[in-house]
This record gives sequence, structure tokens and C-alpha cells, in this order.
Amino acid sequence: MTDELAMQVALHMRRGEGAHVAAGMTMEAAKEGYARVALEAGADMTNGLGTVHGGMIFLLADTAFSYACNSRNHAAVAQQVSIVFISPAAPGERLVAEAVEQTVQGRSGVYQVTVKAQGDRVVAIFQGLARLIGKTVLPG
Amino acid sequence: MTDELAMQVALHMRRGEGAHVAAGMTMEAAKEGYARVALEAGADMTNGLGTVHGGMIFLLADTAFSYACNSRNHAAVAQQVSIVFISPAAPGERLVAEAVEQTVQGRSGVYQVTVKAQGDRVVAIFQGLARLIGKTVLPG
Amino acid sequence: MTDELAMQVALHMRRGEGAHVAAGMTMEAAKEGYARVALEAGADMTNGLGTVHGGMIFLLADTAFSYACNSRNHAAVAQQVSIVFISPAAPGERLVAEAVEQTVQGRSGVYQVTVKAQGDRVVAIFQGLARLIGKTVLPG
Amino acid sequence: MTDELAMQVALHMRRGEGAHVAAGMTMEAAKEGYARVALEAGADMTNGLGTVHGGMIFLLADTAFSYACNSRNHAAVAQQVSIVFISPAAPGERLVAEAVEQTVQGRSGVYQVTVKAQGDRVVAIFQGLARLIGKTVLPG
Repeated sequence: MTDELAMQVALHMRRGEGAHVAAGMTMEAAKEGYARVALEAGADMTNGLGTVHGGMIFLLADTAFSYACNSRNHAAVAQQVSIVFISPAAPGERLVAEAVEQTVQGRSGVYQVTVKAQGDRVVAIFQGLARLIGKTVLPG
Repeated sequence: MTDELAMQVALHMRRGEGAHVAAGMTMEAAKEGYARVALEAGADMTNGLGTVHGGMIFLLADTAFSYACNSRNHAAVAQQVSIVFISPAAPGERLVAEAVEQTVQGRSGVYQVTVKAQGDRVVAIFQGLARLIGKTVLPG
Repeated sequence: MTDELAMQVALHMRRGEGAHVAAGMTMEAAKEGYARVALEAGADMTNGLGTVHGGMIFLLADTAFSYACNSRNHAAVAQQVSIVFISPAAPGERLVAEAVEQTVQGRSGVYQVTVKAQGDRVVAIFQGLARLIGKTVLPG
Repeated sequence: MTDELAMQVALHMRRGEGAHVAAGMTMEAAKEGYARVALEAGADMTNGLGTVHGGMIFLLADTAFSYACNSRNHAAVAQQVSIVFISPAAPGERLVAEAVEQTVQGRSGVYQVTVKAQGDRVVAIFQGLARLIGKTVLPG
């Protein structure tokens, strides 16, 4: 039930996402306080050194974070994020971001998102602070 | 001289950037320890709530950071970034990210990037830790 | 006027601080959106490797942050902090933390605190996000 | 065996810690990639608002982090930490910081430290980036 709601919210958010954001991304799972999103890293997503741009890795992780922190249909926005880049990713790799709720207290929630490449190699670890804004995500 | 080198490095990095990353971005300035990059936020860059996706704001800031931390032609990679989101941005807004070196010591450098919209409204503040990797950016 | 208020607030906060926190610290300046606090790092403040404990460096920076973000007599609490450790400090060194307001918007404020040792050596850079809680600091 | 080594390292580090740092803290557990440290928060550990100083909460978490990231007798230092403060703590409360390794790759390791008060109330969540420095902790 709560997981169904999470899926409805994520699908609604996904429809609102711009094409540039959604490009190459697949929503793999959305549950209460949890989401998993995958990205086929394209050759058009590189930085100046030829590896996948850190901003693309963040965009992927942030997208999983947004589904997880809105999963109860209480609208939340990102206030702050810290990301550690552990290993570079190459264009052509399939990256998976998994967002897991750590705690929610009052209007604040903390989520950890781990981005992995093939063979469970950790690419980045992301810690996000979300703030509930007192609205619902779904209309009505 | 040092500012000319910074511009050469930024132009070289820019050529290596994928089209998806570069879309809508303009490099406005690149000097020693400094860079400024602008983004025309498109309607294709929204999150599920209809504002500019935090991942796009990060991508913009991270791009300015990468030019600034590589500006002496010593290749550097992002190790960690913390970003605070201060106010939302709307599609259609022009966002400017300004990266300023705070300190470099040994192989580590810290950069602050401020992202502003029209009227000097602060959209986000980004603090990046770069690590020098013992190579040059420019070939030869 | 505003700087006088900032000083009154900082002195009031200082009186509320426990002895363990205040030990070795001197409040050197408190102005609107700004504070400077110094610490004589004692031999009793080391970590297991014999240098000044990162927690002590954080405590110093956090104290300067608290005076700066409360300086208008609007009570604020720390929501999140990111700190980068740049160089180690030795017991016996005098460390100075300078907190500078970066932006305030609505109930959120961002402050940068730089911790330096002798000769302007940067020891740490700290970025703090404060949230105003709708009270005053001074009674009455 | 590896857990025994972790305990030896933590005990060695603990002996190097200054009295000011150690005051009120108890090392409860030290295993490979893991540590748990408790603090009886004293009335001398308050901030200017009368709750436990964020710097003391950080000091506690950072101490658990240091045992966890040095647990294999490979000396490591903190490079960067992000901490989110979730709920205030009162003097007199017993706080427990639990550090858990998230990933180690090359010379970098990421650790999450959760600080809880009575009744499993989360006080803070801390994410630390450690860098191995190519030495051992234990002499000989």
C-alpha cells in the first residue's frame, strides 16, 4: 500500500521531469523511503578528462533521492547534499543509484544514495538532507 | 600568462565535454583559480516539481569548479562536494556559476562556487575538494 | 548599532557555554554576520596520532559559526556542516576561526568559517547551514 | 584476529588522546571497519542556547570515525566530513556514536557515523572521508 503510493508518486514526478534530465535514466524501483534509478552513461555525458562527468553522477543520485524523499506523498525538497567520488566511471557503463532513508524527524529527512557500476564497484556515495514543505506531490 | 594558460586549459576541457553536459552552457571566464559558467535553464531541465532540477544546478557548478581547479594545467579531480540549495530556479532563468579558489595545499584544493540567478538571487552554494593527480591537462 | 547587538548576543551566548567548550577559546570579534574566535590548542586536545583532534578544530569553527549566525539576535541552529581538513595542527599552536556570512534567504543562512594557524596556514575550511527558529537569543 | 587488531589500534589511539578529548567518553566497541563510542554529555558541554554543543557531538562522532578508519592498523586521517544535526541533545543525556565503514577503495574510505540518544532518537548523522597515509598506527 505504502509502496504502491511511492510508485505512484515516483511516476508522477517522472512525468514532470524534463527530457534532458530523464535522458538515459530508468526508474527501477520506488518504495516507501527507497528508490533505485539506473543510467546508461552516454558518450555525450563526459567531462573534460573523458570520464563520466561528476555532475551526471550527481544528477542520477539526486533523482533517486527525490523519489525516495517524496515517497509518502509529502512533498520534500533537497536542502543540502554531500557527495564523495570514489572511482571514475567510463562512458558505456551502466550506473545504478540506490537511495535509502536513514532517518526522518519533524520536517527533516536524511537519505544515503550509493552509485555503483558493474561488479558492484562503488562510484560515489551521496548523503542528502531533505525538507518537507507541507504539500502533497500528487494533485487532489 | 597564467590567465592565458587557464583559458587554454578550459577550452581544451570544454572540447572533451559531451554534448549532454555542454547543452545550454557558456564558459564566460577562466582565469588562474577562477571560472565563470552560465546556463540557460531549459524546460527540459526540470525536476518532478517543475523547477530546475538540483542535478542541473550541480552540473553547472561542477563544470565551473572543474575549470578553476585545473586552471594551472595540473590535472585535478573532484573528491568531494557539498552543495546547499538556497532558492529554487525556474526554467527560462539564466544561471551563472562563479568558482573561486579558497586554498591549495599539497595535492588538495578547496573551491567555492556560487550559483546565482537574475538580480543576484543566490540559488546554491557549492564547496568542492579537488585532488591533483600528478598529470597535465594539455597534451605534450 | 548592528555590530553592538552582535557583540551583546555573542557575550550572552558565551555565558551559556559550558566550561569544557570554552576552555582555551577567546572571542576576538563579533559583528553582524561575522565572528572570530581563537583557540590555544592544548596538549590535552590531541587525537590518537598526536596532532590536534579534528573534533577540537570543528568545535572552534562551530563556535565562531554560532556567534555569526545568531548575530542579529534571531536565534539560529546548525542544520548541517561540511568541513575539509587541509593541514594538521600541533598542540601549542594558536588557531583562529573566522566566520563570514555568505547568504541569508528566508530561514536559511550559509556561513564559511576558515581556521588558520600561525603564518596564515589554512588548517580547515568549514561551510555551515543555519536555520532560524523564530525566537530571539537575548531574553526580553 | 582482525577484530583483535582493531581493538589494539583503538586502545593505542585512545592512549594518545588528550584528556580534554577523552573526557566523558567510553570506547564501547572496536572491530574491523567499525567502532562505537559513548559520551555522558556534561553540563560543561553546552552551547550558548543550553543544549549540547554541536562541536561536542562532532567530537564524539569523529572519535568513533577515527577508530573505525584506522582499524586495520593502516594510519588514516580525516579529509572531509559532512554532519547533519537532526535533533538537539540535553546535558545529562548519554550519546552513542556508531561508525560503520561504507566503502574503501585505494587510499580513500567512507564511513557513516550515527549519533543516538536514549530511545534510539537520532541526534546527528555524520559522513566522513578518510585518506590512508601509508604508515601503520602501532609502532614497530
